Amino acid sequence: MLNERPDIAVLKLCEKDMEEGGGCVWMVEMAWIGYNCILVTVSACLVIFISPVAAGSGIPQVKCFLNGIRIPGVVRLKALIVKSFGVACTVGGGLSAGKEGPMIHSGAVIAAGISQGRCISLPLDFHIFEEFRSDREKRDFVSAGAAAGVAAAFGAPLGGVLFSIEEGASFLNQTLTWRIFLAATISSFTVNFILSIFYGVSGFLSWNGLANFGVFENSNYNIWEIPFFLLIGVIGGLSGALFNWLNMQLSKFRRKYVTSHTQKLFECVLVAAVSAFTGFMTLFVVNDCQPVGINPNLTDVNKLWCRNGEYSAVANLFFQSPEESVKSLFHSPINSYRASTLFIFAVEYYILTLWTYGLSVPSGVFIPTLLTGAAWGRLVGIGVEHLFPDVTGVDPGKYALAGAAAQLGGVVRMTVSLTAIIVEATKNITFGLPIMLVLMVTKWVADVFNEGLYDAHIELNEVPILGWNPPKLSRNILAERVMRKDVMAMEQRERVKRIVQVLRTTAHHGFPVVDTINPPTANSQFPDYGHLKGLILRSQLITLLSKRAFSYDYYGEHMVEGYSPVRLSDFRDAYPRYDESLDRIYVSEQDEHCWMDLQPYMHPHPHRVPLNASLQSIFSLFRGLGLRYLIAIDDRNCVS
Amino acid sequence: MLNERPDIAVLKLCEKDMEEGGGCVWMVEMAWIGYNCILVTVSACLVIFISPVAAGSGIPQVKCFLNGIRIPGVVRLKALIVKSFGVACTVGGGLSAGKEGPMIHSGAVIAAGISQGRCISLPLDFHIFEEFRSDREKRDFVSAGAAAGVAAAFGAPLGGVLFSIEEGASFLNQTLTWRIFLAATISSFTVNFILSIFYGVSGFLSWNGLANFGVFENSNYNIWEIPFFLLIGVIGGLSGALFNWLNMQLSKFRRKYVTSHTQKLFECVLVAAVSAFTGFMTLFVVNDCQPVGINPNLTDVNKLWCRNGEYSAVANLFFQSPEESVKSLFHSPINSYRASTLFIFAVEYYILTLWTYGLSVPSGVFIPTLLTGAAWGRLVGIGVEHLFPDVTGVDPGKYALAGAAAQLGGVVRMTVSLTAIIVEATKNITFGLPIMLVLMVTKWVADVFNEGLYDAHIELNEVPILGWNPPKLSRNILAERVMRKDVMAMEQRERVKRIVQVLRTTAHHGFPVVDTINPPTANSQFPDYGHLKGLILRSQLITLLSKRAFSYDYYGEHMVEGYSPVRLSDFRDAYPRYDESLDRIYVSEQDEHCWMDLQPYMHPHPHRVPLNASLQSIFSLFRGLGLRYLIAIDDRNCVS
Repeated sequence: MLNERPDIAVLKLCEKDMEEGGGCVWMVEMAWIGYNCILVTVSACLVIFISPVAAGSGIPQVKCFLNGIRIPGVVRLKALIVKSFGVACTVGGGLSAGKEGPMIHSGAVIAAGISQGRCISLPLDFHIFEEFRSDREKRDFVSAGAAAGVAAAFGAPLGGVLFSIEEGASFLNQTLTWRIFLAATISSFTVNFILSIFYGVSGFLSWNGLANFGVFENSNYNIWEIPFFLLIGVIGGLSGALFNWLNMQLSKFRRKYVTSHTQKLFECVLVAAVSAFTGFMTLFVVNDCQPVGINPNLTDVNKLWCRNGEYSAVANLFFQSPEESVKSLFHSPINSYRASTLFIFAVEYYILTLWTYGLSVPSGVFIPTLLTGAAWGRLVGIGVEHLFPDVTGVDPGKYALAGAAAQLGGVVRMTVSLTAIIVEATKNITFGLPIMLVLMVTKWVADVFNEGLYDAHIELNEVPILGWNPPKLSRNILAERVMRKDVMAMEQRERVKRIVQVLRTTAHHGFPVVDTINPPTANSQFPDYGHLKGLILRSQLITLLSKRAFSYDYYGEHMVEGYSPVRLSDFRDAYPRYDESLDRIYVSEQDEHCWMDLQPYMHPHPHRVPLNASLQSIFSLFRGLGLRYLIAIDDRNCVS
Repeated sequence: MLNERPDIAVLKLCEKDMEEGGGCVWMVEMAWIGYNCILVTVSACLVIFISPVAAGSGIPQVKCFLNGIRIPGVVRLKALIVKSFGVACTVGGGLSAGKEGPMIHSGAVIAAGISQGRCISLPLDFHIFEEFRSDREKRDFVSAGAAAGVAAAFGAPLGGVLFSIEEGASFLNQTLTWRIFLAATISSFTVNFILSIFYGVSGFLSWNGLANFGVFENSNYNIWEIPFFLLIGVIGGLSGALFNWLNMQLSKFRRKYVTSHTQKLFECVLVAAVSAFTGFMTLFVVNDCQPVGINPNLTDVNKLWCRNGEYSAVANLFFQSPEESVKSLFHSPINSYRASTLFIFAVEYYILTLWTYGLSVPSGVFIPTLLTGAAWGRLVGIGVEHLFPDVTGVDPGKYALAGAAAQLGGVVRMTVSLTAIIVEATKNITFGLPIMLVLMVTKWVADVFNEGLYDAHIELNEVPILGWNPPKLSRNILAERVMRKDVMAMEQRERVKRIVQVLRTTAHHGFPVVDTINPPTANSQFPDYGHLKGLILRSQLITLLSKRAFSYDYYGEHMVEGYSPVRLSDFRDAYPRYDESLDRIYVSEQDEHCWMDLQPYMHPHPHRVPLNASLQSIFSLFRGLGLRYLIAIDDRNCVS
């Protein structure tokens, strides 16, 4: 499809003119740049004006969501639509961006939507899967969706499972593992089946993802090659760490100076123009024509500016889809690319990718990073070949594979899942071992300098994500110091007036329930709370109010008019948008003097820590149990 | 090596005699059975008299250990030696047993040993890795060791990581994941390197485990074959569930009636004799001779009782190493085995495996189960071929692979890790998808009937393992009902006399520290404890006693003679055998009146739950945080 792009057609028409020294080529270039800019503008507008959360790869957002942080709109239909249309435009517009990250995000959105059996945006409620309407269940589905996304993108179901375990699911258990696995399996199966129809061999299921890196024919390697693989790992680690550092500086710059819609849009268009211009100029300046004979699978695109029987190595890199370019770097015969071409391409693409990631368009970082790495990896391979001219079987494609893995590993710092993804995407298990070694070395080297790209972006956005390990020195910080002092507690039976007032004046999501509340003493601004009896959530209180679950007298013997019994499903139905209902609740003055009995609804034994608990131990409670609330109690079990 | 076994040599000598109707064959059979019985006797004696915990595959024991349960001797040198020598004898003795499970156990023992930097049995202390001398660190090492074991056994580093995640590590985190991965990688690399030397292509690293199932040449499959794969999944699930049920009945019988050393030894020898007899008789009775032409890689063993130019399919199954037989079932051409041979073999081997698992010898269940499954899977393949005689490309080997996966999946109920192991062991990623489908179906079907073999054995041994999910209906059981009522608490400053007395009269591993202890009231047999202040471990108290960390007066101003300051490393040095030191501590009458100050050593903020906490929530605390102690407190924060 890419081969039939109108700009290419014009370019071919022009070829003759150019050979005669005409100026047609500049016209073509303008047309090309214009075409790319239009597509990228569409993509950027979608993101900027409709769903800003759909920018970037989406993996950081999914990671935050799975960590239990509710970023508004991450798993909404709007994000899905913008993401999928947007990414098509981004990739079509020639940006150095991949579609794999967005595909993972899309998988997560679809999973979240299906699990809820309804769509609030449309609005549509099928009244199915109602038991899944809770944060915990939704998270599990999103983990599975992300795995299914990886499975579809790379044809890597095992990679998908490992991705969810390594990067995603904060709260893993065994049952979840095999559910994720099921989702990934079915996703692969579906992709395989559709691809088999697409390629006209309907029903023959081979193991193909959408990004397919081809099969290595020569899959031997020798132990003396291991040091070179390790070297590639070191280079990948350094280059990845540098990438992350530069991208962070760029992102900080953007947050400061590229803030308005127009500025953002302008930057996207600028990048599109520069990307197109770079490719074009490189093709024009670097004259790397190779005989066609040694390289199969060439199309007209590859033959630009070269004589008959030759093709342009540069066009091979710049003007195919990135997946095809990666494939070509992996599998082309030894002399398909000049070293200088590879070097120029790697540097250019590195910079373009750097600039692209963080723009307001949906764009993944997987494929462009793999492509950059494959280019310099192949360069290393050519170097090794020159060092050992007598040894046969030095295939630069192997080194391209190692380089691709190293560059991506250096940027995202995945190890186990990335190995599985690459092994599955190349359908080759023999190179698993060197890839593993490369990725381990890469991670070690890169981790010395900074953290992975996704984590860095999460931190930049100041998302309070809980990592795997507690912060250093947290052993010496006690609960007293980190707890919120402005806790609002409820008594077991509480006046409606106070509940409404507390809900409307605070944004707390949970309220401890205590047996007595005494007014603040002289030396404290906060009330003196009694023994901890339970915990009630903001959402529960809102639901109780809307169901008018309160009574005229203290002991709940005379319920108010309009009272309807509260069932478990009532709490679920309001999920996940409670606060909207709060505005709709009308409480009369008479109601305000009524009593609400919280005892039947509260969580009777919430998790608690003493005031002298260390931050480390609090961290492991939050992380290990997936908690959202933890109540600090003093020596007498009173809320502090 | 197997091919040069003395019995085989005798057998060949006899062949001529037998053709002439002589009785030589019976003599050979006796020799054979004798040879097998001797080997099995050695193996059984090692287990029965030296290390009973080395019996079986060891995976259940490792699983318990990783769950935090200290089974005596599981990760000791003695177990390693018995396991490795024993399994060689078991497999050499012709039992239907594999060496892969024991290899995983061995990996775990080695990891535990290395991590401690010493060996108590020898005794040897290198004074390295002292910081790893704690339960938690040792567990992490054992997870990695198990993964390394899988990586070595099947050449499956990814499978090893997934195995540790799915079956082993109860308390996983991301850091642990990539450490496990590193261990698995290095293990594979080492095995590959040694194998490359062994096979005389030193330095050429291909992806080989010790159990190598060969490479499929024809790796296509079509969508119409999927229902047959699913059928295989169902058969595997049923057959696996039946296997587990029968093995449980057998194990219960054994616990009741096979209890003395002699009985156990006799049973092992009996099984060895029956196994040898069965193979021999089958070879004798089933006369399945096939032309050599179509099957490469034949040795003399395979040609028994057949004319020149022919080989015996039965010998191919019974008298090669099981790994070779599996390979042969996967890759032999279509007509290599008669359907009846496969059927008889599958049934016989199923029963033999059933009988073998649970004997007092080190024996794994992976390979024999794979072999059984491969046999009936190939049978299904032959059936499919008969159903669709016109379709080419129906390779019974594919079905053998699916059958092997299904049978093993039905017995052990692994899904993700088993897929990875099989994919890596066959070096073929194309069949990953059908294998996944088969394993999912198998798990669904089998889980209807009972649980996995390992879990069943763990339960049979009444090990209080904490599964992934809390028991059903645990929501309605409260802490009050499940807690131990006979808690012994300590005051913050305690008389040495009481400490010694408590340590010697109870076996509790942890003691809450409270501010006051009042004598029991009239309506309770237990003392009335004050506010919870901390938790001190038995091991800490013993170390404090041995360091004489007590003083003549209440406020600790005059320490006793012989007092030496207690450092963190003192607590570590005693690990893991504290109780032995308790017996060696001498406390004089004068000492008994001294005071020990527990405050500096106790854990100041132990985890606590209120009396009305549900068992479900307690379960998730234990499971999520890897706790060993949880203190139940009443409304006033007093220990109950």
